[in-house]
Amino acid sequence: MKEIRVGLVGCGFMGKAHSNAWLNVAKFFPLKVKPKMQVACDKVKSIGKAYQENWGWKKFESNYKKLLKSKEINLVDITTPNNAHKEIALAAAESGVNIACEKPLAMNSDEAREMLKAVRKSKVKHMIWFNYRKVPAIGLAKRIIEEGRIGKIYHIRASYLQDWIMDPNFPLVWRLQKEITGSGAHGDLNAHIIDLARYLVGEFDEVVGMDKTFIKTRPLVEEAAGLAGKGKKEKGKVTVDDAVLFLARFKNGAIATFESTRFAGGRKNQNQFEINGSRGTLAFKFERMNELQYLSLKEPQHLQGFKTILATEPVHPYVHAWWPPGHILGYEHAFVNAASDLVESIAKNKRIKPNFEDGLKCQQVLDAVLKSAQERTWVKVDEM
Amino acid sequence: MKEIRVGLVGCGFMGKAHSNAWLNVAKFFPLKVKPKMQVACDKVKSIGKAYQENWGWKKFESNYKKLLKSKEINLVDITTPNNAHKEIALAAAESGVNIACEKPLAMNSDEAREMLKAVRKSKVKHMIWFNYRKVPAIGLAKRIIEEGRIGKIYHIRASYLQDWIMDPNFPLVWRLQKEITGSGAHGDLNAHIIDLARYLVGEFDEVVGMDKTFIKTRPLVEEAAGLAGKGKKEKGKVTVDDAVLFLARFKNGAIATFESTRFAGGRKNQNQFEINGSRGTLAFKFERMNELQYLSLKEPQHLQGFKTILATEPVHPYVHAWWPPGHILGYEHAFVNAASDLVESIAKNKRIKPNFEDGLKCQQVLDAVLKSAQERTWVKVDEM
Amino acid sequence: MKEIRVGLVGCGFMGKAHSNAWLNVAKFFPLKVKPKMQVACDKVKSIGKAYQENWGWKKFESNYKKLLKSKEINLVDITTPNNAHKEIALAAAESGVNIACEKPLAMNSDEAREMLKAVRKSKVKHMIWFNYRKVPAIGLAKRIIEEGRIGKIYHIRASYLQDWIMDPNFPLVWRLQKEITGSGAHGDLNAHIIDLARYLVGEFDEVVGMDKTFIKTRPLVEEAAGLAGKGKKEKGKVTVDDAVLFLARFKNGAIATFESTRFAGGRKNQNQFEINGSRGTLAFKFERMNELQYLSLKEPQHLQGFKTILATEPVHPYVHAWWPPGHILGYEHAFVNAASDLVESIAKNKRIKPNFEDGLKCQQVLDAVLKSAQERTWVKVDEM
Amino acid sequence: MKEIRVGLVGCGFMGKAHSNAWLNVAKFFPLKVKPKMQVACDKVKSIGKAYQENWGWKKFESNYKKLLKSKEINLVDITTPNNAHKEIALAAAESGVNIACEKPLAMNSDEAREMLKAVRKSKVKHMIWFNYRKVPAIGLAKRIIEEGRIGKIYHIRASYLQDWIMDPNFPLVWRLQKEITGSGAHGDLNAHIIDLARYLVGEFDEVVGMDKTFIKTRPLVEEAAGLAGKGKKEKGKVTVDDAVLFLARFKNGAIATFESTRFAGGRKNQNQFEINGSRGTLAFKFERMNELQYLSLKEPQHLQGFKTILATEPVHPYVHAWWPPGHILGYEHAFVNAASDLVESIAKNKRIKPNFEDGLKCQQVLDAVLKSAQERTWVKVDEM
Repeated sequence: MKEIRVGLVGCGFMGKAHSNAWLNVAKFFPLKVKPKMQVACDKVKSIGKAYQENWGWKKFESNYKKLLKSKEINLVDITTPNNAHKEIALAAAESGVNIACEKPLAMNSDEAREMLKAVRKSKVKHMIWFNYRKVPAIGLAKRIIEEGRIGKIYHIRASYLQDWIMDPNFPLVWRLQKEITGSGAHGDLNAHIIDLARYLVGEFDEVVGMDKTFIKTRPLVEEAAGLAGKGKKEKGKVTVDDAVLFLARFKNGAIATFESTRFAGGRKNQNQFEINGSRGTLAFKFERMNELQYLSLKEPQHLQGFKTILATEPVHPYVHAWWPPGHILGYEHAFVNAASDLVESIAKNKRIKPNFEDGLKCQQVLDAVLKSAQERTWVKVDEM
Repeated sequence: MKEIRVGLVGCGFMGKAHSNAWLNVAKFFPLKVKPKMQVACDKVKSIGKAYQENWGWKKFESNYKKLLKSKEINLVDITTPNNAHKEIALAAAESGVNIACEKPLAMNSDEAREMLKAVRKSKVKHMIWFNYRKVPAIGLAKRIIEEGRIGKIYHIRASYLQDWIMDPNFPLVWRLQKEITGSGAHGDLNAHIIDLARYLVGEFDEVVGMDKTFIKTRPLVEEAAGLAGKGKKEKGKVTVDDAVLFLARFKNGAIATFESTRFAGGRKNQNQFEINGSRGTLAFKFERMNELQYLSLKEPQHLQGFKTILATEPVHPYVHAWWPPGHILGYEHAFVNAASDLVESIAKNKRIKPNFEDGLKCQQVLDAVLKSAQERTWVKVDEM
Repeated sequence: MKEIRVGLVGCGFMGKAHSNAWLNVAKFFPLKVKPKMQVACDKVKSIGKAYQENWGWKKFESNYKKLLKSKEINLVDITTPNNAHKEIALAAAESGVNIACEKPLAMNSDEAREMLKAVRKSKVKHMIWFNYRKVPAIGLAKRIIEEGRIGKIYHIRASYLQDWIMDPNFPLVWRLQKEITGSGAHGDLNAHIIDLARYLVGEFDEVVGMDKTFIKTRPLVEEAAGLAGKGKKEKGKVTVDDAVLFLARFKNGAIATFESTRFAGGRKNQNQFEINGSRGTLAFKFERMNELQYLSLKEPQHLQGFKTILATEPVHPYVHAWWPPGHILGYEHAFVNAASDLVESIAKNKRIKPNFEDGLKCQQVLDAVLKSAQERTWVKVDEM
Repeated sequence: MKEIRVGLVGCGFMGKAHSNAWLNVAKFFPLKVKPKMQVACDKVKSIGKAYQENWGWKKFESNYKKLLKSKEINLVDITTPNNAHKEIALAAAESGVNIACEKPLAMNSDEAREMLKAVRKSKVKHMIWFNYRKVPAIGLAKRIIEEGRIGKIYHIRASYLQDWIMDPNFPLVWRLQKEITGSGAHGDLNAHIIDLARYLVGEFDEVVGMDKTFIKTRPLVEEAAGLAGKGKKEKGKVTVDDAVLFLARFKNGAIATFESTRFAGGRKNQNQFEINGSRGTLAFKFERMNELQYLSLKEPQHLQGFKTILATEPVHPYVHAWWPPGHILGYEHAFVNAASDLVESIAKNKRIKPNFEDGLKCQQVLDAVLKSAQERTWVKVDEM
């Protein structure tokens, strides 16, 4: 493809991370085809318009259907809340527009399967933004595993800890409403660590899990805004989980604990894992995202220890595009890295990873965990 | 009680930690009653005799029954493999001898219940050596919780990671044989983190778990010793778990993940936990046992962060007896601290904590997890 | 000022960091006046032209004098090697163009004084890019000091450690040639930690120091490039220091050690300091630039400890413009933050900090250290 | 020597660490000759007697001269304040009694030289208790250096930070009085890091330093005790330094910063160093004394990083005598390790390291620094 004209649908928090990626990717990466920031789209015109201007998107459009039919773009980037992913993706596939979609892919695996079917049929390119795969330290973990340096994997213990809704007076935002978001910490956070486990360890076999909602009612958003004003504040029901925990068996024999929660005080965005294999161990914490811990059991006994690899060398994934060693990277760099992979894949007509298949497989694990939580027993993960 | 005359049964690894405790406790702690190292006992005379002389026990005796009847001691310290705990404890109770027993209390909760019944009937004092409760940083965690500083507890995630049997040629020692040890990582390591969870969080309600044996056969010990010699080495079956993972609900609403394994490469003795409450978080790792991590959500926003408290101040539990601030303590100090509590309790005729009740309650959780692993569903923890 | 039209002189490594800042600053910060990327300038046309296009500067110009006279810009950003700073700044001052200049301000304090005099005379705005002041965690350190939380300062120990020229075959680049760069680790790295010490502790009184060049000759750059080719490679003399160490007394009574080196293996960009005051301590390491260590001696004894503050909260300096808590920032964000301050200051006609005065004062300390190294005794730092 | 009969002179804080060592050394280490705790000696009878009984020394004696002449002991262990070291050591040498002396060896290098001369003449064995050499992680550092793994040494930066006298109302104890202790942080703390530098890096060539006393008067001890009582408290003059900082050149070309202070809030006993060589780096902090940081520049680029070696493996120095891997050691273990070396050396009639020569050489560096501080210039370190 000679030209990549991007349209972004959804001008909220994730839209900011994506716009930054589109703005900067061709400045840092030596891309043959430079993506054009063509159209920003949001159904709320007031928000979308300001956003378009700020980030330098060429045009604004409030109707995504029009946008998809218009030929103005050949890549749509979906950053809306989860309940709109499917309809936009299906429309894009029908219009022959390539798709990059935020995670989780859908509200459940039925939706995800439908989306995968549609992109396969239309043969458009499809990517899912599992940004953590694009963190250099995690790419390095993948390389170390592929080099055989940790051997056969026995364990992964992963957790994704946040604390932003711990205050019982934090309002009932859309991320706490099931009909919009599907689930709480589960789809938001477990989706990430499930994907990383699939990336680094392998496919899931079966799971057993539980969910919990600690704070069951919260002030409505309107009320929250007007708190200072009247007297009583109206509350609404929280319809998603605050935390979901599960155990897992992988097809290759590895076993695991997983946990996502929004009630871990002081953990702001702690996406962390440790993987133990027959030849060594890897460990990662996002709040120190430039560092990878690695221990090799094959070194001389008196020298063995956990090594903190500062993944800022040119030999580390993506780093050649950025700064000299020791000049650390931040959260949004992973999105720029992902955009670089996406552009390269489209330009060279290659398969993109991760894609809607990864999105579906992640969703199948998510669904199995919720089913297990209801049925109080182990549940096999569906195969596509 | 005016005089405490100790008899130690079991002269292996744990015996060393206990002898050190008895030797040093009255040097560091200002005890009114100073325990006497009266008799060391082991059924293997050659081992026991050398041990008795090295550590300065006054006498040696190979028959624990004789020892218990002899009136030479009024406190028996049991450090044998697990399958001998019950018979020794019952005999001691019958002889009216106070008892300190290594963990886990017994092979299963039936045995543990019988032991508790016996000590209650005979009214001897009874302690179980959950040494980690006696680590100053963990005592400090308890104090911080009791001061209300972390509020209502939402989560504990605990794991106890080791790696000493990862080599498939590591031999089939007694700790890998079910009839002697009961279970593998489960009774050895999960026992500790279950006890700490009970100490710091509260009583368990229900659990769901799984177990795994990664290496299913191993060289017999005799063979292992003779490895250099012949050609083929004979192997035997590993009859215990290498790792046991479980989820838990507590009666107070907290939820948890637990994991113990001997297959976490590079983790030597990593007994670690994090507890998240409505007002703050605590975290601990044994390999940095002098440090407690504490975060308060009640501090000014710009100053919040995880604090590393070096628990070596005189105000921290047990530290007044040791060295000045910053002069750190090691593994065996927890046993000396425990011995100090034990002697004080006996001398002042007070109840000892933790005791056989704690031993039984821990065993009930251990049993529930194993049952759950077999039945593949959640299991309620028995109440005494 | 209603419009800020930027011209950048020097299209090398620092130019990249600056271009990124100009490109992104108005996307993240809600600036009233949005800077325009007007002209990129470099005397090497081939480099400069490609650079201009990549970063989206509107025009290219190879002659900085023309540029300054052209009225096309009203702010020049100087990112050339150090030996060109003075002439460009003097020309800009003469043309009434505002100036942002990379550090160190000049080759020595005579040059720096001349530059300060020129900008004062012409009344243009002037800034020096000491980017580390703009790291949120360091801004937080400043706030904590200003709140009186560490009390009277007793000590600062600062070091800036790198390792990029440790290989004796690393070639004789311009940063190793005195006539271009002035000094080695001293002007490059000590300049930063001297500025931070002035920012956080106060003014220097006297210093005693030493310098060292470990590798005295290196392959010439041309030769280095052609290494694979011929046989013998020609070497040239390294004319700058590899490391400079010094002790200092501050006017407020604080005492200090400082060290900068390019021979600390494994330390990639470790700009670190610890400040001890009568009420507490602060510590920082750039390789974990999102974290500030803070200990208060005023907390209850049993709770005292070093706190790791993750400086990613909206209440921390500059963070409101970026991402949610725990979504960490990287090296280049400090330049964007600096650009934001610069634009705001010019727009609102306010004094900019740090400025050429800070540049001169830093240079006076640098000079005093070199003099001390020659004379082997303590040297008073000049006052402006 | 078939029998080692120890007499300890000085029953204060260091006496406790030493008594613990004598009590435990033969329990853990398989010594052929087991030292006997024969006589405890202190000029204050009330203190010494209680101490002797607590620690199980066989006899008490208040007059060290009598003790040395009595033939009851053949090894004297000197743990008095520094101003008494010389006279006791000279008397011991004259009586043909082997000597272990606490650091610093003497009040100055003249005294130290006299002591060395005396022990050489009398041919008694002599050791100085530089306990940090006996920490396993530091022994491991020595081994790594000797294996050539960090190559030619460029840098050491060492500091020893404490905070126990920061309160201006902390009383004027003997450690703050020059006539008893010689110097403040300098002899107490710099002595340790100078010795470690000599052990790990090599001999000093020249130094330049400074000293500082932050709090110049303090309540007299008697007054301090009676604070609650009257009104005004009498103060006395602090006659030693609170902090001493210096730069150094080593004979092998390495350069260094050193700093010791008792005014680093929150640093309790932070004896720390980093050593950079041409092939790698080592770093150590006492408050995590079981860990050694090691980075090798010879590993594959993508795997380089600082390794945290937990020095608790049987292959690490002294650890075979203690506990299994991951069961960490504390402050006093280094003294037990030292006692083990001492006993072995005497029993096998081998030279002990470190000894009075090391004591003198350390003292010569201490003296040169103080001279430099007075003369405000570089000072050559004397050679013996």
